[in-house]
Parts: sequence; structure tokens; C-alpha cells
Amino acid sequence: MNSKERIQETLDTFNSIGERPEGMQRLAYTMEERQVHDMFAELCAKAGMQVRVDEVGNVIARKEGRIKEASPVAIGSHLDTVYTGGKYDGTGGVVVGLEVVRRLNEKQVMTDHPIELIAFVAEESSRFGMSTIGSKAMAGLLSEDSTEKAKDKEGISLKQAMERAGFPGADIAEAKREEGAMQAFLELHIEQGQELERTGKKVAIATGVAAPTRLEVIVQGRSAHSGTTSMDIRKDALSAASRLVLKIEEAAKQESSHKTVATVGVLDVSSGAMNVVPGEVAFKVDIRGLDIASKQRVIAAIESESSVLESEKGMTISMEVLSDEEPILLDSEIQEVLKGACASVDIDPLYIPSGAGHDAMNMAKICPTGLLFVPSRNGISHNPEEFTPIEDFVTGADVLEQAVMKLAVTKEVKVSK
Amino acid sequence: MNSKERIQETLDTFNSIGERPEGMQRLAYTMEERQVHDMFAELCAKAGMQVRVDEVGNVIARKEGRIKEASPVAIGSHLDTVYTGGKYDGTGGVVVGLEVVRRLNEKQVMTDHPIELIAFVAEESSRFGMSTIGSKAMAGLLSEDSTEKAKDKEGISLKQAMERAGFPGADIAEAKREEGAMQAFLELHIEQGQELERTGKKVAIATGVAAPTRLEVIVQGRSAHSGTTSMDIRKDALSAASRLVLKIEEAAKQESSHKTVATVGVLDVSSGAMNVVPGEVAFKVDIRGLDIASKQRVIAAIESESSVLESEKGMTISMEVLSDEEPILLDSEIQEVLKGACASVDIDPLYIPSGAGHDAMNMAKICPTGLLFVPSRNGISHNPEEFTPIEDFVTGADVLEQAVMKLAVTKEVKVSK
Repeated sequence: MNSKERIQETLDTFNSIGERPEGMQRLAYTMEERQVHDMFAELCAKAGMQVRVDEVGNVIARKEGRIKEASPVAIGSHLDTVYTGGKYDGTGGVVVGLEVVRRLNEKQVMTDHPIELIAFVAEESSRFGMSTIGSKAMAGLLSEDSTEKAKDKEGISLKQAMERAGFPGADIAEAKREEGAMQAFLELHIEQGQELERTGKKVAIATGVAAPTRLEVIVQGRSAHSGTTSMDIRKDALSAASRLVLKIEEAAKQESSHKTVATVGVLDVSSGAMNVVPGEVAFKVDIRGLDIASKQRVIAAIESESSVLESEKGMTISMEVLSDEEPILLDSEIQEVLKGACASVDIDPLYIPSGAGHDAMNMAKICPTGLLFVPSRNGISHNPEEFTPIEDFVTGADVLEQAVMKLAVTKEVKVSK
Repeated sequence: MNSKERIQETLDTFNSIGERPEGMQRLAYTMEERQVHDMFAELCAKAGMQVRVDEVGNVIARKEGRIKEASPVAIGSHLDTVYTGGKYDGTGGVVVGLEVVRRLNEKQVMTDHPIELIAFVAEESSRFGMSTIGSKAMAGLLSEDSTEKAKDKEGISLKQAMERAGFPGADIAEAKREEGAMQAFLELHIEQGQELERTGKKVAIATGVAAPTRLEVIVQGRSAHSGTTSMDIRKDALSAASRLVLKIEEAAKQESSHKTVATVGVLDVSSGAMNVVPGEVAFKVDIRGLDIASKQRVIAAIESESSVLESEKGMTISMEVLSDEEPILLDSEIQEVLKGACASVDIDPLYIPSGAGHDAMNMAKICPTGLLFVPSRNGISHNPEEFTPIEDFVTGADVLEQAVMKLAVTKEVKVSK
């Protein structure tokens, strides 16, 4: 079986779990996730790896290196999905990691450093409204408190779901791995955007993870009868909100050189009725980018337009920051390693920030981390139409294999703490 | 007791029914509406009138004229309210009608034509989503079929509610009064707008009723990940909808000389989520005005902006006409009578279209009809804050009394069919 066939077969194996008419469904801490994790453990064991499951459910497989106490080079992603998901988001990265190990086995290569494959638990936020739970725990970023608060739509808390799956909340801290415990962490993921497709490139090296800043804006005007209130005396909150929506779009477009994006994805007209001029509109803004100053300029544009609407139209506009995560810049040395790996297989990589969050962003807190993207057709993800040709995963495996060799075969071996 | 005291007392009497902490509530065909109708019947009887209740629940009180077979001059409005209503909408008009009869009684005036006071049943659409039910029936515009379809939020149909209140649906047609059966119909209502307040005038004569044209617009773009989709390749349905909302406002403002108004009161972002660029937005437009060509120009502006968004932004936009009622022009002779009545009590009236629907619009189908407005503070209605000073109702009664005298005392008496 060649590399392409192996990747296809392994992908199919994982996707035999949780297939539904409306898409893939392997939600965090459900039976389907347990099953696919067991399958991963079994395939790793078949590849000669030692497998353990950590205190929150991350599956960690280890291929020993020449030097036992050396810190491992890890490759990982996730196998859980959203409600009506696709077959490639997360799963593709786990499959490619396994493929790299299989190739090394085939070539009978033993690296200096051990190699770890990690299937992170619960990366998607669909069930509990919290994402990258497994890698958060591994980076020491998951509090027991937050697992009590996060609940699914049936009211089951994350803590309860973890317990039912056999991972008692009290042991969360045990899943943490110390800073420096790993030589490097690498993740391959589908792009979920269209930059690779547009540029015709096959691999992108992420320069960072553009964690979102999220705002809630409430526009208060004055509700009035739609038939009896003349246009010139209205204080229409929806009309004012519309101006803000367009201003946000315009401000983000002006920041295109920084690749900052801004989106109004949720907008509610309070007690909307056909015969009422809207008195209050609330909407939420999601702003992402690696450049903090650029994101700030988008926020400033919202504030400035709000002031104009307050003074000229008599609106009252409030803005609350719901969350403001720091963008994460990924390790430049690992980016260099990935660049070299691309060059060695004749690939000219693209450099882009990751607009979506990934397990890599948590791992970056505890070790040098790299994130590689392969194309996703039409940029579609979190949808059954999600698609990446197997050839592109083969290319991704080529790059990842080279990078792992570079990172795991070294004269100066770092000793694991 | 003077006129002002009588009006205040009668208003208070009616508003002793259905008072709640959150506002007045006498919904269509509920116990509260029955009670307030009984109270009205009792007060009319005390004023020496003969009272009957028609087949749908309209209460009709008659003060005989000198010529028994002459067609009556009717005055009417409604006593039902919205869910958290005020004390003046509808009720004020019924009270003023009763005050006119009481004044004629006090002066021992007998007119040539009989005078009728009508308390229409179920004017507000709050319960069944259908308005002016009583006057629709009186004008022969209420089908039994529509009473089966209209349901309240508990699933009770209008037909069932009518039956429970003692008005079997099969008799609806009996409530119809023939064209010419009435000499004239007059309604006094609070303005529900701010034109009187702005101009400092006390009475407005409605030139017509600007029945709404209602549209549903669906904007389809392409949903995408808010973090990974660059601004320049988005097809953001909310951004496109925002442009349409602003265009609608602008187009209506350009029609201000025709007093056309347009409102987007309902807007939904389908499967809205903070991290999703909206793929579909649906909104509803309510356009009102007496000038059909002016309303058409607003619709044309929506169509034109939609075309631009389709060709420039790749949106797919559909527009459906949900309802398109003809504006009703009110009888010019009655407007002249009302003008004369104003002049005789030294009032300089304003002329405006009614942006809201009223029982008068149905009555206009079967007899010459006039509609008078008195001020409403800040234009607020359908709200506990609704307010009109009693002095303004006294002024309204002055004008109405003069108009009734003009219409009901005549040499050439029209014989009732």
C-alpha cells in the first residue's frame, strides 16, 4: 500500500465512526469520540507505539527514540467533530501524523528524540461552548471551575461528561505537561479558508493564531409605530446598527494588509414586529488578526461611528468586550524548520495567520510549536461538504516527515525534564 | 359635572377593566372586552339610547331622530387594547362619542337623523393577528374562512373565540350593513404620531388611511468561517441586508412630500453564530402612504439596490409581497364638514394621512366616513405611557358635536334602506 492509499484507508477507518445522513458527528466526550480514540490507540499500537491516555482523555502514543531521556517531538490534532461536521477537520492532521510514523517505520528509521502522536480530546466547542479542551489541559490552561460551568444543551456539565467518560475532574492538573517537556509540537490542519486555493499553493505555514476579540454592541433608539411616525423624527435602532455593520466591514477591509477580519454574525432586533420602528438592536462582533494595533483600529472605527450616531441621531450605544484573547505568534525557529522541510520537497509555502483556534495555540504556551495548513476546497469546513484531496495530505505528510526528521534527529539532544 | 369631568369619569370607568401592572389589557373576545362592552351598553342605556349587540359582538346604541326612517349618523371606535396597552387608543374615541350624545341630551336636542354610537369589537390585531374584526364584519369584509385560520397563541381560532363569547361564526354575514345604510360614520382617535405635537395644533382631519404594503426580502450570501475567510472573498448576507435597510430608509425620506414611510421592523440572521459570516438574512418591510406611485418608488429603490448587490457582490435576493392593501382616501365632503366644524369652534385643523389602520377604513367602504385625530404625547401608543390630556378630548368633542349637528340635522332627509 502506498502513502496515498494508507492515508485514505486510515481516514476512512476513523470516519466509519459517527457517520450520519446530515454529516459526521463525534462530539466531545461522547461514545463516538471514545470509539474513534480507541481506534487511534489500536492503530498506533499496531505501528509499534506505546499508548497511554492522559487524565482528561488525550491519547498519547510514543515511538521511542535512540536517546530515551530526550524530549519528544510531538505531532497532533483532534478526532472530534462539530454537530454536522466533515471528514477532514482535525482527523486529517491525526492521520498525517500516523502516516509520518508509518513511513519512518517502513524506512526503519529511529530518531534521536522520541516521537509522540497526540489525539487531543474535545477540540470543537460545539458541545460545551469551550474549545481545545484537551490541549488546554495539557498546557495547564483548564481550570476545574471552568469544567463545572461549561454545560451542553442537556445541562450536562463538562465535568460530569468527563467523569462519565472515566476522567474525574480532580485529576485535570495531572494532564499538564511542563514547559520544555517537549522538543517541539507540530500540527497539520485543513486551512478552512481559501488563501491556498486562491494562490494555487499546497502548503501554508501559520505565522500565528489570530484569537478573537469579541464585542457586544447594544444600540438603543426609540420604538415607534411604523405607520404614524414620520421618517424625520425616528430613532431607528436597526438603521443605526446597519450603519455600524457596514462600518465594521469597511474598517476590516482597510486592514487587509494585516489580514485582520471582522464579522457581525449575530444580530437581534428586540421585540421585532412589522409595525414597529425598532427601538433596540443588539449585535456581536468577532475581530481577528495577529496585529493588535490593527484590531484596535477596527474597534476605534466602531467607537467613532457610534459617537456620530449618538450625536447626530440621538442613539445610545454601548459596547462591551466579551473576550479579548491575545494573538499568538508561532515560534520562528519552527517556521524556519518548516520552510526548510518545504524546500526539501520542492514546495513553495504560503505564510498566513490562522484565523481559527487550534490545539497548536495552547501547545505554543509550553513548547516551540508549528502549524501547517493544507487546502480546503472552497474554504468550507464544519460542514459535510468539507473536502481536501488525499494528494494534498500526502504533500503535507512529505513536509511533516522532513520537519520531524530535522527536529528529532540532532546531535545536541535536549534532555526531557 | 362639566364636559371635561364627564369625559375623565367615563374614561376611568372603562379603564377600571383590565388594568394590570404592565398596562391595560382587554384583548379581543376576552372576558375583559365583554365586561367593558357591557359597561358601554349600560352607559348608553342611561343616556336614553336603545342598545343592541350585533352578530359578531359590536355594540350599537341608537338615539332616535325626528325622522324614524332616516339613516343614522354613526360615531364609533373600539374598547379593546393590545397586550400592554394604554388608556386612550380606541377608548378615547368611544368616550367622546358618548360625550357628544350626552351634550345633545343636556341641550335637549333631537336631530333629524338618528345618532348611533358603535363600540367595535376586536380592533387590535394583538390576539389573532387580524385587526378591525368588528368593522370588517360590519362592512362585509370578514369571511368565515379567515376566522377559522386566525389563531391566538394558545391555538384558539377566532371562530372558536367568537363562539365562546356567544357569537357563532355562521352568523357573521348578518352583521353586515348595506351600503348607504348609514348617513355617515365618524371616528375620533388619538394620533399615535407627533404631527399635531410638532405643529402645535389640536385636531387633525385624516385625508385617508395609508394601508401597508408588506414585503419579505431574503438575502442569500455564503456562510463562512469568521476567522479564516478574508474580507474580500466574503458574501456576507448581513452586510448586504444592512445596505438594503439603509436604502429603504433613504428612499422613504425622499418621499417625505408624500408622507410615505417605510420600516424594517423584523430582521433575522439565519443560524447566526459569532464565528460564522452570515449566509442568509431575512427581513420584512412595511411601507405606508396614500400615494401609490410614491410607495412604488420605494419598492423600486429596494429592487434597484438588490440588483446592484446581486451583480457586484454575488448575492441572491428574493422579494415577496406579503400583503398590498390599497390606500383608502376618505370622503372629501365629510372632510369639508369636519373643516367647517373646526372653524365653528375656532380650530385650525391639520390634514394628514393616517399611517395606522382604523375601523374607519372599513366603514369607508359602506358610507361616507371621516376620521379625526387628537394629539398623543410623544406619539406614543400601544404602551402604558400613551397619554392625551382630557382638554384635547373636550376639543375633539366640540368638533365632533358640530359635525354631527351638521350631518344629522338637515332638510333633505335621506331615508334608511
